[in-house]
Amino acid sequence: MLTLCVRNVLSRRFFTFKTKRCTVTLLLQHSWRRCSTAQTETLDRVSMLLQLCVDRYYVSPGQTNVELFQRGLCCNYGPLGMELRRNLLDQWWHSVTKSRAQVFGINTLSGSRETAALGQGQLRIVEYEHLKQSVEQKELNKEQLIQEVHMLLQRSPSTRTNLLQGALEQFVPSLELVNRKLPFGLAETGLCFQPSEGSAEVTQTSLVWFCSPRTSSQWLDHWTRQRLKWWRKFALSPSSFSSSEVQQEELEEAASRGVRIIYDFPWGQEIVETLWSRGDAELLSIHKGARSKLQCRDGRKSVPHVVSITANMDRGVMAFLSNSLQQLKREDSKQKLHQRKVLKLHPVLAPIKVALNISRGATVELRQVCEGLLQEFLEAKISVWPGYLETLPTSMEQLNAKYDEMGVLFTIVIGENTLESGLLQVRNRDTTIKETMHISEIKNFLFRYISATDNI
Amino acid sequence: MLTLCVRNVLSRRFFTFKTKRCTVTLLLQHSWRRCSTAQTETLDRVSMLLQLCVDRYYVSPGQTNVELFQRGLCCNYGPLGMELRRNLLDQWWHSVTKSRAQVFGINTLSGSRETAALGQGQLRIVEYEHLKQSVEQKELNKEQLIQEVHMLLQRSPSTRTNLLQGALEQFVPSLELVNRKLPFGLAETGLCFQPSEGSAEVTQTSLVWFCSPRTSSQWLDHWTRQRLKWWRKFALSPSSFSSSEVQQEELEEAASRGVRIIYDFPWGQEIVETLWSRGDAELLSIHKGARSKLQCRDGRKSVPHVVSITANMDRGVMAFLSNSLQQLKREDSKQKLHQRKVLKLHPVLAPIKVALNISRGATVELRQVCEGLLQEFLEAKISVWPGYLETLPTSMEQLNAKYDEMGVLFTIVIGENTLESGLLQVRNRDTTIKETMHISEIKNFLFRYISATDNI
Repeated sequence: MLTLCVRNVLSRRFFTFKTKRCTVTLLLQHSWRRCSTAQTETLDRVSMLLQLCVDRYYVSPGQTNVELFQRGLCCNYGPLGMELRRNLLDQWWHSVTKSRAQVFGINTLSGSRETAALGQGQLRIVEYEHLKQSVEQKELNKEQLIQEVHMLLQRSPSTRTNLLQGALEQFVPSLELVNRKLPFGLAETGLCFQPSEGSAEVTQTSLVWFCSPRTSSQWLDHWTRQRLKWWRKFALSPSSFSSSEVQQEELEEAASRGVRIIYDFPWGQEIVETLWSRGDAELLSIHKGARSKLQCRDGRKSVPHVVSITANMDRGVMAFLSNSLQQLKREDSKQKLHQRKVLKLHPVLAPIKVALNISRGATVELRQVCEGLLQEFLEAKISVWPGYLETLPTSMEQLNAKYDEMGVLFTIVIGENTLESGLLQVRNRDTTIKETMHISEIKNFLFRYISATDNI
Repeated sequence: MLTLCVRNVLSRRFFTFKTKRCTVTLLLQHSWRRCSTAQTETLDRVSMLLQLCVDRYYVSPGQTNVELFQRGLCCNYGPLGMELRRNLLDQWWHSVTKSRAQVFGINTLSGSRETAALGQGQLRIVEYEHLKQSVEQKELNKEQLIQEVHMLLQRSPSTRTNLLQGALEQFVPSLELVNRKLPFGLAETGLCFQPSEGSAEVTQTSLVWFCSPRTSSQWLDHWTRQRLKWWRKFALSPSSFSSSEVQQEELEEAASRGVRIIYDFPWGQEIVETLWSRGDAELLSIHKGARSKLQCRDGRKSVPHVVSITANMDRGVMAFLSNSLQQLKREDSKQKLHQRKVLKLHPVLAPIKVALNISRGATVELRQVCEGLLQEFLEAKISVWPGYLETLPTSMEQLNAKYDEMGVLFTIVIGENTLESGLLQVRNRDTTIKETMHISEIKNFLFRYISATDNI
């Protein structure tokens, strides 16, 4: 169980609690410094979610790491968290590139010497020893020393803080691809550094959409609808995702309009994606005002306007984990009441689709059946958990509880019976119903189940 | 055509040539400063390859960028290069995680404050303005200024130069996953920075394998066989990939054995992957010698040995592009002799599986057929090139030449005939044979073709 200890709630912004594997400190919203009962319940819920993420291999243990995770920043992910983010990025990629023929993937560098040489770029990668040696040169006076540091910074590459810059730079080489015809988009996912968060990392997705000036506002609306639909598609309670127009006074310098997609976390709202209608100023500035190079064939030879669509997929992972956690009361076989926790992640997002287990009386033959099935699943790219390798004795009930917390979609149990009849037992995470199925059918069954939920 | 100009060959290491879209400078091996005829031919071949990569959307134009690419570093990739690297990483992931149940994916941070605080880590991310302001403080004398820079560096996160460190740190939380049972592995792909290459970026793949001390040499051999097989599987001439044992005097400090997988580029051999048997020293050092935390159940309660398997996938992209480029002589319809260039990338690696085109007499109906097929392919995750959107008039011969250079596997032509009979023409890149096929069969045909080559 959790031990929640409210420590100096009024003066600090933290709650600390101990989990099996680590001590976690919760970051609270400013307004929460005085806790009501409802707020304490929410805290319980949040700390339970974080504990579950650590215990069930989504997030690596360690207070600093869990804090990064909760703040929607990139952290050390365990195997399940890593796979969840991978699935999420795949879905994003597929949805953005399949939506239209005119979306092209690109890959740009995360460090740039050109930006650095221009004196731009808030973060720089410097060589430790080199900088140390430079400032320790005995013959330099203070003025020269400052000069030396400046030069070194100027020559060090800057790291990107977003993916927009790279896409704007790639606009000209991409024009040939589309015969200068608008609209088209450049898609990219990658790590960006956040100067405002102490150089923390964030996994961003970016679609930069180039369109004719008169259609940019319509495209902003189009992409807002598309993106909101995408977030909601994978949510257990879709209404937790919403969109809101950015107020005039909060608009970024170059932007004429902005929309935010927001997720309602237990502790408050956070932005998961931002869409801006940015005009042509940045594009012109990056290409040094060379209008003729930028003009497109949309009837008027205009420089395109830019709509940028940027999401934070680390916060996305956190949002879907938070959204999918259900607490259910259930009775066990001895009629004791239990809290059942289930991570009801969408089937296409769930990092493990199926767990393979052996019922009591494990023999060499049963293990061989498992190995065979495991290979079959892996080759069909169905991610599988090798529960049969577990050597500690656990009851099926305990196993199911663990798999529910991991969000495993189906649990297969192979027993003596399977060797004779080829039949095995399949348990569904969401219905908890157990079905008997022939071993030859199981792969196709899983395949169909997952694809069906994908196409809703 | 290329304009090769040998400029100061004896004093510098560059060849410069002009392509349609940019000027490219070739980096030469040291021994090449005097060119024989054979070497000039190789240069021709290399410059042709680089030109093709730029012209056919694999690599973004620009001399610095193409140089990064040739040096096996991460560069700005165009849509096709991006997709090729993506396919390569997917294949790596699939091959490593499917090979055994005991391989788990992880994600670690690319920056670390802990490493930095220990005074380790060659590269640091610093805030430009912050560092600038710190050194410009008027009241500081030189000593204090040096102190200030030191402190700032100490507090700045260090960026990773490899993925090994992260995997070693994740060893302890991973032990629970496998019930302390050996062997198991942690897999990760990600960007690393190369201090030796001026902080350039490289896309690395890493499998860190933990095994009992007495089996580590066998595992090194096992993984060498597996990895060499993997590289060769996708190569047109598999013998260009080879492995070689690292000589005793070249061994890294902690390592007892090492093996390199090498690709034979036109300009010489380069390392694409390195396998080290590293013992337990690094694992012990990272976990501060806490043996009891690290011990595994392999009969003897020993601290595992580490086998690290690290590849450079940017160089991998370059290797497969270089390997798959074939020059063939062919006669055109007017019996003129042409050089035909084909990028015979392995079907699972080819970034575009199929191009969709309209034969002469494009109508609204034909375009609608194309749109329908495009959606069908995209939903089946078959990457498709929307050739029918091309508005410049091109002959089918020119189109085929272009698609061959892009490495497009199949070209579909939809004509008036298709509207009546449902039949379309499918051209195979490798055989150049054109088949007639019904529109309802094409998706399954492509699917089967690609899977068949995947399972060889």
